[in-house]
Amino acid sequence: MKRTQVAVIGAGPAGLMLSHLLAARGIDTVILERRSRDYVESRIRAGVLEHHSAAALRAAGVGARMDRQGMEHTSIDLAFSGAHHRIELARLTGKKIMVYGQHEVVKDLIAQRLADAGEILFEADVSGIEGLDSDRPIIRYTHDGRNQTLTCDFVAGCDGYHGVSRASVPAGQIVTHARSYPYAWLGVLAEAAPTSDELVYARHDNGFALYSMRSPEVTRLYLQCRPDEDPDAWSDRALWDELHRRLETGDGWTINEGPILQKNIAPMRSFVAEPMRYRRLLLAGDAAHIVPPTGAKGMNLALADVQVLAPALARWFDSADETGLDAYSDTCLKRIWKVQRFSVWMTRMLHAQPDADGFEQRLQQAELDSVAASDSAARHLAENYVGLPLEVPE
Amino acid sequence: MKRTQVAVIGAGPAGLMLSHLLAARGIDTVILERRSRDYVESRIRAGVLEHHSAAALRAAGVGARMDRQGMEHTSIDLAFSGAHHRIELARLTGKKIMVYGQHEVVKDLIAQRLADAGEILFEADVSGIEGLDSDRPIIRYTHDGRNQTLTCDFVAGCDGYHGVSRASVPAGQIVTHARSYPYAWLGVLAEAAPTSDELVYARHDNGFALYSMRSPEVTRLYLQCRPDEDPDAWSDRALWDELHRRLETGDGWTINEGPILQKNIAPMRSFVAEPMRYRRLLLAGDAAHIVPPTGAKGMNLALADVQVLAPALARWFDSADETGLDAYSDTCLKRIWKVQRFSVWMTRMLHAQPDADGFEQRLQQAELDSVAASDSAARHLAENYVGLPLEVPE
Repeated sequence: MKRTQVAVIGAGPAGLMLSHLLAARGIDTVILERRSRDYVESRIRAGVLEHHSAAALRAAGVGARMDRQGMEHTSIDLAFSGAHHRIELARLTGKKIMVYGQHEVVKDLIAQRLADAGEILFEADVSGIEGLDSDRPIIRYTHDGRNQTLTCDFVAGCDGYHGVSRASVPAGQIVTHARSYPYAWLGVLAEAAPTSDELVYARHDNGFALYSMRSPEVTRLYLQCRPDEDPDAWSDRALWDELHRRLETGDGWTINEGPILQKNIAPMRSFVAEPMRYRRLLLAGDAAHIVPPTGAKGMNLALADVQVLAPALARWFDSADETGLDAYSDTCLKRIWKVQRFSVWMTRMLHAQPDADGFEQRLQQAELDSVAASDSAARHLAENYVGLPLEVPE
Repeated sequence: MKRTQVAVIGAGPAGLMLSHLLAARGIDTVILERRSRDYVESRIRAGVLEHHSAAALRAAGVGARMDRQGMEHTSIDLAFSGAHHRIELARLTGKKIMVYGQHEVVKDLIAQRLADAGEILFEADVSGIEGLDSDRPIIRYTHDGRNQTLTCDFVAGCDGYHGVSRASVPAGQIVTHARSYPYAWLGVLAEAAPTSDELVYARHDNGFALYSMRSPEVTRLYLQCRPDEDPDAWSDRALWDELHRRLETGDGWTINEGPILQKNIAPMRSFVAEPMRYRRLLLAGDAAHIVPPTGAKGMNLALADVQVLAPALARWFDSADETGLDAYSDTCLKRIWKVQRFSVWMTRMLHAQPDADGFEQRLQQAELDSVAASDSAARHLAENYVGLPLEVPE
């Protein structure tokens, strides 16, 4: 029977970063990941790192490639009512954001874990977690075609919204709060050079659109669509026409077209599980919370969780002091609800609301007008966008 | 047949101030008010003047008593989660608010109009408005027991939400947007010395409460209640107990009790009419828009409207130039929707929401936490509270 101190389920940003941070504190982990290495390294997800997240990766020694290949941005752009309105993040907050794909962060963390002789079992499918209320939880999984078990002191559930970790908690121990939205994002990855150094968030009568980039050669675009929309029903021509329509405001700025490499539908959901701990199970990242992507917060929340969790676990292993673990959920949730609030606010402000009457539509327009007219409203948006303060107990 | 240039329907802040501002420009008005002078002078309504409103009253020569008897405040207080959070209006915006009852503003304006030989017909009940699409509208009303008529060039509809002015517009010419709320305010006027120099807006699990004052001897208090609540079902003891419970956070600050002079239920409503003009009819104040009272904006919006309307009318009488009148509605509505947005935001943030699930409740708490934690969020609130910039074309 295999044995480790912290069994980490899921090799996304939360699980990998947690494993890396614990290794630096001399704590042994095994990561069990259901998918292949190739799959997780090429899974296109978020692409914006908060100031704090970039700093945390750098401080953990895994920021070198990000600093070479990532694109530091000092502003974002809101396009609405036929004009562009720059939110000057750096001027308003003194901080910047880093545009660097989540799968690149995953690649860097996997490479570092393996270089440090960390153990990651890919294609390890967890079938059950037992003994969470004992001091020796057991994880059952299949790997290399065989049923196996891993015993540990703690389980870190970093396996996303649909993962087995949260599902293993006895009924009634965790309360969940959820919200769905009557729209989704149609994501487009295109081999086209970005024409702007900032992300453009567009509010158009036809719906929201987001212009972003993955590299100097690749543009990443999103269109608000119906949740049940078939991306293949959109011809490339129709996609580009709609992207031009929603993103370009007639001031001369245009987007470049290019071969479309990938199309996908990203659902929109808000979700929070409370508390983020059940005895020997600690939840982190999407397993505990989902935010709609409009605030670009998903990966950042995952990285924030494990920056609180790693020292809390280390304190327990060092001195059997459980105070950090006891505080983990409350510490994270206070900030998570603020980030959820910001993400919901950005989402409601920027999307065409299919059910909104004239009153709500005009409030939405007034919200945009307020952000454009008020430096303090813009600063509040910027503060949230670059990342709220993160208090990491050490 | 009686004749004037602008027939003003309603002797509230909008109608009286408009008449006063027009008189200063040599334009003749007659004000028709359904109620008695005593009634309108003692009708207890709002009590907070924005920085701009106080300045406008002063500039119009009707601010002397306000400056003597009004109470200038440099901050307001938000009480929630067992603590008081001061919003330092003056530090954050450089501006203050003036606490001075709407009925006092009405008294001052009536006194000034009469001193200037302005004509106000009290207990003049308008039964019909005709010829709004002609250049000579006619108003039919009863006064002194007789049916009378007033002809004019323009009608200023300042007769509130239920008034005859807006109702006289042909169907389909004005679109209305409305929102009701599943709660109301129980207002209490008490002969009790205020114990604080600032208004206290309290968010309590039992519901919202507001602590304010009318004079150094009179406290004005509000409790969130059901819209159908009977104020007389509350004993004085029960009212004070509930006020203590919601307003005092255990830090030693307490409210004074005293004889309750008046109790009333104030409904909560959002309402906007678009456009605010139909040919020779101009709507101003509550006839055109209602905001929930949480932002303290009703009287201020009324005063803002007529500051735009008076010069627009003057331009028409001076030089038959209609551009000001053509722009009146759009100029006002752009700001009105921002003020509506602020009022709705304050309302949703501070009231117990009977229909909110755990998700919405936590977003609401995060909204309060954000205001308490972020100087820019507090500044944005303060900017709106002291009054958004008002562009008065001259």
